[in-house]
Amino acid sequence: MELSKRVEAMQHSPIRRFNVYAIEAESKGKKVYHLNIGQPDVETPACFMEAVKNFDKKVVAYSESGGETILQDAIAKYFKNYNMDFERKDIIVTNGGSEALNMIFTAVLNPDDEVLIAEPFYTNYHTFVTAAGGKVVPLTTKAEEGYDFAKADLIEAAITPKTKAICCISPGNPTGRVLTLEDMRLIGDIAKKHDLWIIADEVYREFAYDDREATSFGMLDDLKDRVIIVDSVSKRFSACGARVGCIVSKNEALMDSIMKIAQGRLCCPTLDQIGAAALYGLDKDYYDEVKAEYEGRRDVVYEELMKIPDVVCQKPGGAFYMTAKLPVDDVEDFLIYLLTEFEDKGETVMFAPAEGFYGTPGLGKDEMRIAYVLNKDDMRRGVELIRLGLEAYNRR
Amino acid sequence: MELSKRVEAMQHSPIRRFNVYAIEAESKGKKVYHLNIGQPDVETPACFMEAVKNFDKKVVAYSESGGETILQDAIAKYFKNYNMDFERKDIIVTNGGSEALNMIFTAVLNPDDEVLIAEPFYTNYHTFVTAAGGKVVPLTTKAEEGYDFAKADLIEAAITPKTKAICCISPGNPTGRVLTLEDMRLIGDIAKKHDLWIIADEVYREFAYDDREATSFGMLDDLKDRVIIVDSVSKRFSACGARVGCIVSKNEALMDSIMKIAQGRLCCPTLDQIGAAALYGLDKDYYDEVKAEYEGRRDVVYEELMKIPDVVCQKPGGAFYMTAKLPVDDVEDFLIYLLTEFEDKGETVMFAPAEGFYGTPGLGKDEMRIAYVLNKDDMRRGVELIRLGLEAYNRR
Repeated sequence: MELSKRVEAMQHSPIRRFNVYAIEAESKGKKVYHLNIGQPDVETPACFMEAVKNFDKKVVAYSESGGETILQDAIAKYFKNYNMDFERKDIIVTNGGSEALNMIFTAVLNPDDEVLIAEPFYTNYHTFVTAAGGKVVPLTTKAEEGYDFAKADLIEAAITPKTKAICCISPGNPTGRVLTLEDMRLIGDIAKKHDLWIIADEVYREFAYDDREATSFGMLDDLKDRVIIVDSVSKRFSACGARVGCIVSKNEALMDSIMKIAQGRLCCPTLDQIGAAALYGLDKDYYDEVKAEYEGRRDVVYEELMKIPDVVCQKPGGAFYMTAKLPVDDVEDFLIYLLTEFEDKGETVMFAPAEGFYGTPGLGKDEMRIAYVLNKDDMRRGVELIRLGLEAYNRR
Repeated sequence: MELSKRVEAMQHSPIRRFNVYAIEAESKGKKVYHLNIGQPDVETPACFMEAVKNFDKKVVAYSESGGETILQDAIAKYFKNYNMDFERKDIIVTNGGSEALNMIFTAVLNPDDEVLIAEPFYTNYHTFVTAAGGKVVPLTTKAEEGYDFAKADLIEAAITPKTKAICCISPGNPTGRVLTLEDMRLIGDIAKKHDLWIIADEVYREFAYDDREATSFGMLDDLKDRVIIVDSVSKRFSACGARVGCIVSKNEALMDSIMKIAQGRLCCPTLDQIGAAALYGLDKDYYDEVKAEYEGRRDVVYEELMKIPDVVCQKPGGAFYMTAKLPVDDVEDFLIYLLTEFEDKGETVMFAPAEGFYGTPGLGKDEMRIAYVLNKDDMRRGVELIRLGLEAYNRR
């Protein structure tokens, strides 16, 4: 019996690939600072578990395929706070942002259709686009320019008759790049000119620092027919394990297609949706508090990173990731060194090599992604270990 | 902007298609007995919510892509009770049986590969096989023969060089057909002869009546390389809204492929997995009790159904569905009549027309599926309403 060629061609997660080395190091008693994964240590707001615990129906029954109405209404109200008008019919609840992306690419892509995505990009975009039979066309950005991709010449040069959509994540993973409304205007005008869908992954919306505004492609009214927003409780509310996300769009034909796919998998978990409704109802104070925490961590990480000679990094404006160029030829080799040979007072550090975030072969070999998901002291120590490790590595 | 042709070709759920008529009837004050959906009224065992409520971690974090180990272990132990040996690595937790099926078809099918499935079949098999680029080849079964499909001539005649798998659901939805171990032996030998995967959807395993044994393709040791079991807590534990299922297989290459897909969507919800682990730990008494309840309902439904002249139905042995041939030309038209024109003391009834469960065009027009998910009195009244409705319908 053979397996599907499509899946055989898929990779195992490039982020998780180095876990074996970390597990080995930890089994030998080394402490490893995990700056490699997007699992925040921030507490999930208590209202999530409270709402779940208050569930008192005798049967944990199927939910509606489009989502629990209590959650759809909470999401609509959340967007209303940003002056964006969405109704229940514009919102389909998904199993995290992951399923949202999977459904969107399945709904819009025919075989060999192309999707523009700025690289470095979140690796699973590649997984989902490929699974839908499409092709990622990377827009290459540079550490020296803060990974900016809102540039007309960069985008226009990549458009072909096969281009179907541009997928923008802002604030960005893995770069932390934040699009301003002017950036979105520029991208939106190109999308209109070439009749492209705009897939707007905005799961980090509030994590925009240095007095940047929380922005959304949903704020540009003339784009409403082509904008498909991906949202999620995972990062914003530190509730990754709830697996609740949603697709938000005013395009009725698209939502009708998405609903067919949603009906196939019946529904999302009932309890998690009830908890998520409580999360979406949190007021502005919550965002301010969490944002201040992450902004402080970013400052610490950036400060420590700038102590490393020859590192290339512009201070990122959002999310909780930072991508930087290191003074080594092969970041993967350096990471394996950190996990297998290096230690300082019994401690070492792990990050994600950025090569896996690039679609263009050969790029990103000298870059790493840090997720600042630990407290400030741990983050400071983690980056210090990168610096000490680099010194030892280059001294060998 | 265009949408994907693949999704445009998909249908909206044929089971849910008639809901508009029911909603309209109910808005006019008519009581509708819903025998059309697979949502049981049986209470979810209390241990589910207890386990969920005892979750005391501060962060609702990502789970492992393959599932929480506590759940994998509970599933392994459950199978062990049937003398089937599976380890953690043989078990990948999924978002319900739906995601399990979706992942399996994605992992084994190349474009135009064929999957044998006895018709009438659960409609979403078609959705998932189509989404994976494959083709359902229906094995036509008959009401007069109790929808038996464990017949060598029937199966062998449908096999082509493109046949990749045979998908068997037992106990069956929508027919209630239960495969004996001898039936499984026969199907297994054909699968070995033609080198086919066996996709064994066994989510109703314990719902086998009249002293039938709970069976599984996993009990036949020589098939272990080709058997892929789909399991779920939805029906067995009346926990449809938990969305917890799993893929169970000893084939390591298959499980490696499935893991790649699983990593793409990161993980299943953490809380529901913890609740599901408690469900899988329930002892035999639970199954006996629930089985007795459903068996009693089946007897009531069958007894009432036999009062209808010219109905064709063999008493089904399992699950909680019954498919029957009615003395009308067009069951869909009859259903719309029941919901829009007919009433008896302000009450009417809804079932699922079986045409949507057939892959062969034109078949099933005179058949309906009943789900016996209400208590005995309501089931009796529901089937009585079908009888009274038929009399009125054929008298017009």
